[in-house]
Amino acid sequence: MPYFDTASAAPLHPVARQALIAALDEGWADPARLYREGRRARLLLDAAREAAAAAVGCRPDELVFTPSGTRALHAAVAGAAAGRHRTGRHLVHSAVEHSAVLHAAEPFDTTAVGVDRAGRVDAGEFAAALRTDTALACLQSANHEVGTVQPVAEVADACRAAGVPLLVDAAQSLAWGPVPGAWSLLAGSAHKWGGPPGVGLLAVRKGTRFAPQEPADDRESGRAPGFENLPAIVAAAASLRAVRAEAAAEAVRLSALVDRIRTRVPQLVPDVEVVGHDRLRLPHLVTFSCLYVDGEALLTGLDRAGFSVSSGSSCTSSTLTPSHVLKAMGVLSEGNVRVSLPAGTGEEEVTRFLAVLPEVVAEVRGRLGAPPAGRTSGPASAAASAAGASADLVVDSLGKRCPIPVIELAKVIGDVPVGGLITVLSDDEAARLDIPAWCAMRDQDYIGEHPATRGTAYQIRRRT
Amino acid sequence: MPYFDTASAAPLHPVARQALIAALDEGWADPARLYREGRRARLLLDAAREAAAAAVGCRPDELVFTPSGTRALHAAVAGAAAGRHRTGRHLVHSAVEHSAVLHAAEPFDTTAVGVDRAGRVDAGEFAAALRTDTALACLQSANHEVGTVQPVAEVADACRAAGVPLLVDAAQSLAWGPVPGAWSLLAGSAHKWGGPPGVGLLAVRKGTRFAPQEPADDRESGRAPGFENLPAIVAAAASLRAVRAEAAAEAVRLSALVDRIRTRVPQLVPDVEVVGHDRLRLPHLVTFSCLYVDGEALLTGLDRAGFSVSSGSSCTSSTLTPSHVLKAMGVLSEGNVRVSLPAGTGEEEVTRFLAVLPEVVAEVRGRLGAPPAGRTSGPASAAASAAGASADLVVDSLGKRCPIPVIELAKVIGDVPVGGLITVLSDDEAARLDIPAWCAMRDQDYIGEHPATRGTAYQIRRRT
Repeated sequence: MPYFDTASAAPLHPVARQALIAALDEGWADPARLYREGRRARLLLDAAREAAAAAVGCRPDELVFTPSGTRALHAAVAGAAAGRHRTGRHLVHSAVEHSAVLHAAEPFDTTAVGVDRAGRVDAGEFAAALRTDTALACLQSANHEVGTVQPVAEVADACRAAGVPLLVDAAQSLAWGPVPGAWSLLAGSAHKWGGPPGVGLLAVRKGTRFAPQEPADDRESGRAPGFENLPAIVAAAASLRAVRAEAAAEAVRLSALVDRIRTRVPQLVPDVEVVGHDRLRLPHLVTFSCLYVDGEALLTGLDRAGFSVSSGSSCTSSTLTPSHVLKAMGVLSEGNVRVSLPAGTGEEEVTRFLAVLPEVVAEVRGRLGAPPAGRTSGPASAAASAAGASADLVVDSLGKRCPIPVIELAKVIGDVPVGGLITVLSDDEAARLDIPAWCAMRDQDYIGEHPATRGTAYQIRRRT
Repeated sequence: MPYFDTASAAPLHPVARQALIAALDEGWADPARLYREGRRARLLLDAAREAAAAAVGCRPDELVFTPSGTRALHAAVAGAAAGRHRTGRHLVHSAVEHSAVLHAAEPFDTTAVGVDRAGRVDAGEFAAALRTDTALACLQSANHEVGTVQPVAEVADACRAAGVPLLVDAAQSLAWGPVPGAWSLLAGSAHKWGGPPGVGLLAVRKGTRFAPQEPADDRESGRAPGFENLPAIVAAAASLRAVRAEAAAEAVRLSALVDRIRTRVPQLVPDVEVVGHDRLRLPHLVTFSCLYVDGEALLTGLDRAGFSVSSGSSCTSSTLTPSHVLKAMGVLSEGNVRVSLPAGTGEEEVTRFLAVLPEVVAEVRGRLGAPPAGRTSGPASAAASAAGASADLVVDSLGKRCPIPVIELAKVIGDVPVGGLITVLSDDEAARLDIPAWCAMRDQDYIGEHPATRGTAYQIRRRT
C-alpha cells in the first residue's frame, strides 16, 4: 500500500526504530543527574547533538533539540526577534512559509515577499524588503507543498549585508543535505526525515542575538524548556545520519520518478496543472491540480485505490480556504494533489499510481457533472442560439463549494458569444483563486472581482 | 543496581515499552490526514486521550497532550492567566511549587504561600491569599522533593468559592491516583509514571477560561502546537493505566519501605534530619539531610555504592543555592538526599541502602574533618581555656562552600563560654538556611544575620 505523503510525516526509518528501542533501555534517565543512569543519558544526548550538528553544519553548542519543528520555528522567531527588539519589530518572510512561521510572526509588523508562479521568491525582491527596523528575516529552504527550492544562500548574503539574521525553515530539505549559505538560525523536524515525532531541532549560530521567550529552564541552553525527549532524540540523530548516507543516490532515483509523474500526469489526465518549479525542486515531491475536481473526493478515491497523498485544496482544509502557498503562486487549487515519495519508493508503485489516477479523476468528474475533458468552450449552445443568447450572463453559485463554481462557469461559457461577459457570484474562498486560474488555463479573459450583495462577483469575458 | 530517583524519571514501564514499539508501526502518520495511515494514527490518539482522561478524571475533550510536564505547566499558567486578564494579573501559588510553575509565574504579580516545617501549605492561609484581582491559583498535589501531600481538595473549594481557577501540578502523584476536588486545570508528566519522555498532559475543565498564548495551531485544540508525539502518547496512556492497576498494592508496599527508611536512617546515621510529612506523603518518597556533609560527595559515594539518588543541596545545583523547597520549609539542606523508589523495589534493596549509607556519610564527614558524631558542643577547649577565651568569636568562612561554614561553626562553638556570641562570615547561600537549621538541631540560639563588608554575618549565641 504505497504511502506518498512523506512531506507530512515519513515512515520511521529502520535505523531510527533500532536506535529508539536501544535508547529506551539506556536513555530514559535524566541527563542532568550525576549518577550512572544520568551519565549514560547525557552521553547519548551529547552524541546525538554532535551527529545532528554535523548534519546541519553547525557547532554542537549551537544546536538544541525541541519537541517539534513547529516549536523550533516558534522559539526561533520569538527568540531572534526579542534579541533584536531594539532594532525594531519588523519581520520579512516569503509568502509561502509554513504556517508555523506565519503564526509565530503574527504579533509583529511583517512584510510577505511574493513568489512567482513556480513558488520561488526572487532574492533581489527579498533583499529589497529588508528595512532598518527589520529584526528578522525568514525563508524556507524548500516549499512544503510544491517542493520549490528557495535561493537561500543569496538571500542569506543579502541579509548579512543588511545586518539582519536569517532564519531558515529547513524542515523539508534537511533529509537531502545541509542548507548552504550564511544563515543565522535554522529549524528542522525529525519526523520529516524518518525520525520519530516529538523531536525538532533549532540551530542558532554564534553571534546571533537570541533571547528565549519561554519561561526560564536549565535544559537545552534555556532554549527548549522541559525534560529532553531522549530516546526519540537519539533515534532522530541516527536516522538523519542514515538518510544522509543514502541521500545522493536516492535523490537521483526519486527525482526520475517525480519527473515521470510531472510528464505523464498531464498526458494521462486532461485539464491538469502541474505546479512548482520543474528543476529547482525537492527530489521527491510533485504537486498538481485537476480542474473540475473536489480535492477531498480525489484523496478519498486515491485512498480507496491504496494511495495516501495530501492536498492543498480548500475542501481538505479545516478553514475551507485553499492553501496559502497555491494562493501566493496564483495557481489552480481545486483537485490538488501533493505526492511526496518516501525513500525506497519503487518504480512499480509510481506506475500503478499513474494507472489509477486517471480513473479516479474521471470518476470524481463524472459524479460532479464536469464539462467534457479538454473542452475550452465552444459555439453557443443550441438552446442559447435558439433563444437568441444575450451577450452577458450571471451564474449564481452562492452556497456552492469548490469546484462547483468553476464547473458552472465552464458549462455556460459557450452560452455567451465571444466578447460576452459572465459574472459568477460565489461565496467560496477557492473561487477567488480558481476562477482566474481557470481563465488562464482556458484562454479566457479574467476581468476582476468586486463585492456583491452576497459573496463576490467574479467577471470573465469570453475570448475564444 | 538500585535506581532510587523515580521522582526525576521513572524507568520505562514494560507496558509502555510494548505499546511504544507497537505504535511505531501503527502510529507514525499524521492523525490530521484522512488516508488510512492517518486514520489509524487518529484512532490511537483518540484511544490514548480517552484512557488518560479516565485516569485523570476529566472528559477526553478537556485533555490535551503536551511535549512535557514542564510545557503543560507553562501553557496552563499562561493560558489560564490570559483567559482572566480582565480580572487582574495576580497569581497565588505555594512557595514549594515546581520551578516550572515559578518560572511561568514570573511575569505576574505573585503571592507565594508559605509552608510549615513539613512542607505543607495551610488551606486557610492559601485561601486568605486570594484577592479580587487573582487570575489563577497554583498548588501541587504533592511535593516533588519531600513528598508532602497538599490539601488540594480544600484549597480547590476555597478557590471555587472565590471564583478563582485552581491549577494543580499533579506530576508527582498521578501514578498513584486521580487528584480529588474541584480543580480547574491539571498538569502531568508521563516519564514520572513510567511512560516515555516527550509527553505531558494538560486538562482544562469546561467552563474554565483559557486563552492559549502560543502561536495558533490546529493540533490539540490549539493548546499544544506541533505534530503530536504519537507513539510516545500511546505508550504514556498505556503505562498510566498499568501503573494505576498496581497502585493500591504498590503504595502499601513502598510506603512500608519508606517508613523503614524514615525510622532507620536517624538511628543508623548520627546528625540527620528527616524532612517532609510523616503521614501526609507520597508512598514512595523520603528525603533527609545529613549535617556536615557535602551533598555532591554523598551522591557520588552512593553512586559508587550502586545507588542513584537525588539531592536538593546547594552543591548539586547549577546556581549553588539550596533547593527553594527546603528553604521554604526552613530545614537543613546540606547533605540532602531524596530517595524515590520505583514500583517493584524490593526489601533487600532498601536493606542494602541502609547498610551502605552510614559508611558513605562517615567517609564524607571524615574527609571534610567534621566534628565527632552527635557532639552538641562541649566545654571550652583546653586551648581556649588556657588562653582565657574571650566571650565572642568571629569565624571567617568567606569563599568556603556548604557544608564547611557549618562545620567550622560546630568546631568552635565549644571555644566560647555559654552565653558567648559567634559570628560566622559566609558568602555561601546555603549558610543562610543551614546555620539556623544547625542551631535548631543543636539547641543553640540563632540571633540573626546582617550584611558584612564581604558576604553575610550570621550570629549565634551558645546556649548549651
